Amino acid sequence: MVIEMVNVGVLGATGMVGQRFIQLLANHPKFEITALTASQRSAGKRYEDATTWYLDDNMPESVKDITVVDTDPSQVKDVDIVFSALPADTAALVEPKFAQICGVASNASAMRMEPDVPLVIPEVNPEHLDLIETQQKNRGWDGYVVTNPNCSTIAMTITLKPIYDNYDIKRVYVSTMQAVSGAGYNGVPSMAIVDNLVPFIGGEEEKMETETQHLLGTLEDGVVTPAPFGVSASCHRVAVVDGHTEAVFIELEDPCDVEEVQATMSKFQGLPQKLDLYSAPKNPIVFRNEENRPQPRMDRNEEGGMSVVVGRMRRDPAFENSLKYVLVGHNTIRGAAGASILNAELINEIIL
Amino acid sequence: MVIEMVNVGVLGATGMVGQRFIQLLANHPKFEITALTASQRSAGKRYEDATTWYLDDNMPESVKDITVVDTDPSQVKDVDIVFSALPADTAALVEPKFAQICGVASNASAMRMEPDVPLVIPEVNPEHLDLIETQQKNRGWDGYVVTNPNCSTIAMTITLKPIYDNYDIKRVYVSTMQAVSGAGYNGVPSMAIVDNLVPFIGGEEEKMETETQHLLGTLEDGVVTPAPFGVSASCHRVAVVDGHTEAVFIELEDPCDVEEVQATMSKFQGLPQKLDLYSAPKNPIVFRNEENRPQPRMDRNEEGGMSVVVGRMRRDPAFENSLKYVLVGHNTIRGAAGASILNAELINEIIL
Amino acid sequence: MVIEMVNVGVLGATGMVGQRFIQLLANHPKFEITALTASQRSAGKRYEDATTWYLDDNMPESVKDITVVDTDPSQVKDVDIVFSALPADTAALVEPKFAQICGVASNASAMRMEPDVPLVIPEVNPEHLDLIETQQKNRGWDGYVVTNPNCSTIAMTITLKPIYDNYDIKRVYVSTMQAVSGAGYNGVPSMAIVDNLVPFIGGEEEKMETETQHLLGTLEDGVVTPAPFGVSASCHRVAVVDGHTEAVFIELEDPCDVEEVQATMSKFQGLPQKLDLYSAPKNPIVFRNEENRPQPRMDRNEEGGMSVVVGRMRRDPAFENSLKYVLVGHNTIRGAAGASILNAELINEIIL
Amino acid sequence: MVIEMVNVGVLGATGMVGQRFIQLLANHPKFEITALTASQRSAGKRYEDATTWYLDDNMPESVKDITVVDTDPSQVKDVDIVFSALPADTAALVEPKFAQICGVASNASAMRMEPDVPLVIPEVNPEHLDLIETQQKNRGWDGYVVTNPNCSTIAMTITLKPIYDNYDIKRVYVSTMQAVSGAGYNGVPSMAIVDNLVPFIGGEEEKMETETQHLLGTLEDGVVTPAPFGVSASCHRVAVVDGHTEAVFIELEDPCDVEEVQATMSKFQGLPQKLDLYSAPKNPIVFRNEENRPQPRMDRNEEGGMSVVVGRMRRDPAFENSLKYVLVGHNTIRGAAGASILNAELINEIIL
Repeated sequence: MVIEMVNVGVLGATGMVGQRFIQLLANHPKFEITALTASQRSAGKRYEDATTWYLDDNMPESVKDITVVDTDPSQVKDVDIVFSALPADTAALVEPKFAQICGVASNASAMRMEPDVPLVIPEVNPEHLDLIETQQKNRGWDGYVVTNPNCSTIAMTITLKPIYDNYDIKRVYVSTMQAVSGAGYNGVPSMAIVDNLVPFIGGEEEKMETETQHLLGTLEDGVVTPAPFGVSASCHRVAVVDGHTEAVFIELEDPCDVEEVQATMSKFQGLPQKLDLYSAPKNPIVFRNEENRPQPRMDRNEEGGMSVVVGRMRRDPAFENSLKYVLVGHNTIRGAAGASILNAELINEIIL
Repeated sequence: MVIEMVNVGVLGATGMVGQRFIQLLANHPKFEITALTASQRSAGKRYEDATTWYLDDNMPESVKDITVVDTDPSQVKDVDIVFSALPADTAALVEPKFAQICGVASNASAMRMEPDVPLVIPEVNPEHLDLIETQQKNRGWDGYVVTNPNCSTIAMTITLKPIYDNYDIKRVYVSTMQAVSGAGYNGVPSMAIVDNLVPFIGGEEEKMETETQHLLGTLEDGVVTPAPFGVSASCHRVAVVDGHTEAVFIELEDPCDVEEVQATMSKFQGLPQKLDLYSAPKNPIVFRNEENRPQPRMDRNEEGGMSVVVGRMRRDPAFENSLKYVLVGHNTIRGAAGASILNAELINEIIL
Repeated sequence: MVIEMVNVGVLGATGMVGQRFIQLLANHPKFEITALTASQRSAGKRYEDATTWYLDDNMPESVKDITVVDTDPSQVKDVDIVFSALPADTAALVEPKFAQICGVASNASAMRMEPDVPLVIPEVNPEHLDLIETQQKNRGWDGYVVTNPNCSTIAMTITLKPIYDNYDIKRVYVSTMQAVSGAGYNGVPSMAIVDNLVPFIGGEEEKMETETQHLLGTLEDGVVTPAPFGVSASCHRVAVVDGHTEAVFIELEDPCDVEEVQATMSKFQGLPQKLDLYSAPKNPIVFRNEENRPQPRMDRNEEGGMSVVVGRMRRDPAFENSLKYVLVGHNTIRGAAGASILNAELINEIIL
Repeated sequence: MVIEMVNVGVLGATGMVGQRFIQLLANHPKFEITALTASQRSAGKRYEDATTWYLDDNMPESVKDITVVDTDPSQVKDVDIVFSALPADTAALVEPKFAQICGVASNASAMRMEPDVPLVIPEVNPEHLDLIETQQKNRGWDGYVVTNPNCSTIAMTITLKPIYDNYDIKRVYVSTMQAVSGAGYNGVPSMAIVDNLVPFIGGEEEKMETETQHLLGTLEDGVVTPAPFGVSASCHRVAVVDGHTEAVFIELEDPCDVEEVQATMSKFQGLPQKLDLYSAPKNPIVFRNEENRPQPRMDRNEEGGMSVVVGRMRRDPAFENSLKYVLVGHNTIRGAAGASILNAELINEIIL
């Protein structure tokens, strides 16, 4: 049997998330990188020459000789899907142009909240992909744009999904301790993080608060109605390279047994697991029972960085029907490049 | 005018908090260090020889030649007050013995929740010092034990006090990012904290939850009735030397104007400010208006480490009558040694 | 063809280096872990229950159920080789006992400088293994002890070997920036390393100075004559988890062309490469040409942590016939567990 | 007695070194800040509004309301001395213009190696200030430019001075572990420094190698002849906020007694000490005898950051007539702003 490879491109291929895309796609059984784009300064160069490689693994041999082109659909030939690691402002301009001719699986925030653009975590709300049809009709595109949420939102929402499937959530508080890689290579000066932390990440709290409701919302007649419970976030940057840690406090509407909740979360499987998608972790949620886990350096790479690791699950003695836990998710894998790739794998399997 | 100096001792003088006591007392205008105790291994040595000094400032000359004695009341002559930096288990054994003959201002957790032992932050609940009389009667002591809360609790409760004075608090969630110095010099291995964090601190959450209610509770007929609102904490250790950062979420019973709350907090003054006590900061709460403050390295030393610095004060859009903010407090000054010293200064001023 | 597996044990299996042994041996094609030892406190427990696992990869399934035994030859049945991750004082007592019955490939420093104990890096001085025969004759052992050098020494000496093969070295200065994992999990408190470094590592400089000469020395008539050039080391601990960085300054006796030296180092291959041993890196020395490499987080895992990465190779303009460079080597892989395993693979191939 | 204050300005006042100038000058008994300059973007704003303050101490009240002006002599009225914290390229353009009308005490590297510009550490080579006369004659300036060396060079050269006064130095090797503040607030990304180090600092090694020789050189007939011994440096950036650590290896021409050398260094005093200049430390070199000191976080603030702290002084067993030690110096105080201020104090005292 010959597998027909899907030709894919990476938009913004030289940055931190762009590099993760390349790392994760380099040995992909169905996707083959055929195009890499970057800013005009890099266009025309070999990828190896255009890029300061930031990841601990070496740059894959297979991409070194690809000639980087400008981030412009006219420069990118014969791709089926492009993965977008563009900054939000560039994404707003060029993703719609690419969508005229191919699929766009975007990690950028630009189009996430547009009503006809699916914002999807495959384990959480695959049914929102139905919006692609609406989108193509609305906009007259041959391709489409599908987006994944912000890194902090993805990790938390995966853990909320099995809870929300089984219990009515009344409110959620979340306090994050986020890795510096989330801000890009030059995003956080070392002066700001050695013996220090920064208790502010622009736009992050708003994203966690709105995207979570959207992801757990219901799609009906082409419109997503957000989940009805409130989410309040406080977001902080700490001296960790990769892996966001989040302290989550949940109040439910009704009494619950915390061990039952944990059991529900542990055995949670979504559509990617059922379809056995290549990038899908066997366990979207992995529990650690040690009292001092999860820890970002130890747990971020669970199942190749695609699982969210949860620990310290406990009843909240302060309030009725309440529980709390801590999670760690890899922000540039599960929270960015891996999220977009899993979206594309799902679309490739069920739609195309 | 001759000032009669109060003779003070430091119990557990060689450890991290013991060293802070010495640093803060070295130039004190009313307290003079006349005794230093440590474990038997150190007894008989000059303080300089017995101690690996951990603080960035040099060891004060005045204590170098003091002979360290065993932590035993029979070894400590002519002190009026001892400051206790003892571990909880030792404190439980020896603090009552010292209290038979002198005042004990303790940073240890051992006796904090005993019904006749005042747990006091001078700006918050100075009236709880009335328990000293009860205590002396109950136990037949000539001296007394007064305790201060856990470091994380102190910083948060100082910020809650002016709110609680003016509004009914319904619930509080708090997520901490705590400095490694809080665990003692050898408490947190570097393997646990480089490119990592530890989402667990033994007993800390319980202390924050119970001590806060106790501090804001009312003393009547010799009994403290805890404040009626719940507190839920999640505590985490991060790669910061000194200074605990806390994300605080508060729900009030009634609507409030956030700017009004901030104004109330900004102008808050307690009894130590009115009495102009030596270690009292002019402003127990200092606001920073930059969007990315407070930060521990930048803000922990505000007013000699005795102020709590608050920033990111904002309405919580997710819930009614809710607000959130971030605070930084110096854990071994305001949160430990400075707290005990301020307690002793207050007692010295109003009782003795 | 059936491969007869060699039964191996790990002495001191629950510590940091012990865990590396287990990680590296778990999928080994020729060595099979059949015994794990630790202190009496752990003896009798399942390995999973006895161990706080420190590595980022999960504990291999295959060792979880092995019952840990006391570090005593009478407790260890049917092993062909034991790998020793013991502290020096324990090693001095028990390694000779094990050597009566089996091979001991030791990472401990205890016996390194004994005249009849080979101190070996397989790429550097495999011929020193001839001492095993002398050793067995001297001591009447059926087994043997082979040791590998200190972590910092290994990385530097691998880079010196091809130079010394081709040029007369006059002197070497080396200044190290060593990872905290080298001191064991609890070895370096975070208070000592956050916004700080520690310019002292007990015994390390002496080891670098003597072991390097010994490794590059010549074995004749059962006696190793050290290499005649001096080595001066200054050793420092920095805030890095894994991977030692070393700045090396070399003066040669005669003029040299730096590019030629680099070429010689780049193509260097030792006996493990010729024999294609399982743990042997294809390139013992890997050059990076970027001006700011090697860096420990980026380069320590080169070829599974078994290559030494060198960069910043340059003529030293200050002195005649001089050059300098920077290297990074993985301290617990190439510098410890991997070193012992490679020694055992070589012995297994050429002697047994 | 009325002290006539010297009016001073700070060029490049909003950056990291500019802020240190302000912090150190705020309470200066002889210098009064009357002008602050920055780039055009900041010109016209109040200093407080123009500046993101990076230091742990709060911004001095006295400068908050000063209006920042463009870095142009026509904008700066009535100053006697300007301190330059400009980047090298800007310094090259504007320092000569300022020198037409006032003294320029510069921390920039632009003019350090010009033959008629004194490069001075007051304790090391105050006699080089005689070049000012030559300079004024050559260039027709009413003012002058005096420079201080690079931060790493200053700390090392202060320690070399008393040795060189008493012994013939044959060669020096130095390996640095430098603080991130040396690169400016945004200079080192946290991605480069968390669990990592960067073994390269552009231009730093060349500066250490040439400036050291120049400082210890002799001025005769208006020309500085460099000291005749070679210096070889390897420079590295580590995860420390402030304080450069340097491992120094020295070979002397003749035998020496290490304790004698240490004694000579300990009691070393230069002209600033004799003149009792305001910013002069009582001891330019302070020894720590603990085996693991100096450490940057503990020792950088010795005597207000103006002393260099030395430890681990030891004979180098590898080579004849050799010794080695480790030093810590505060890079933005002794190594930058404080150095320029001490230069100005000396000039103000002996020349003007």
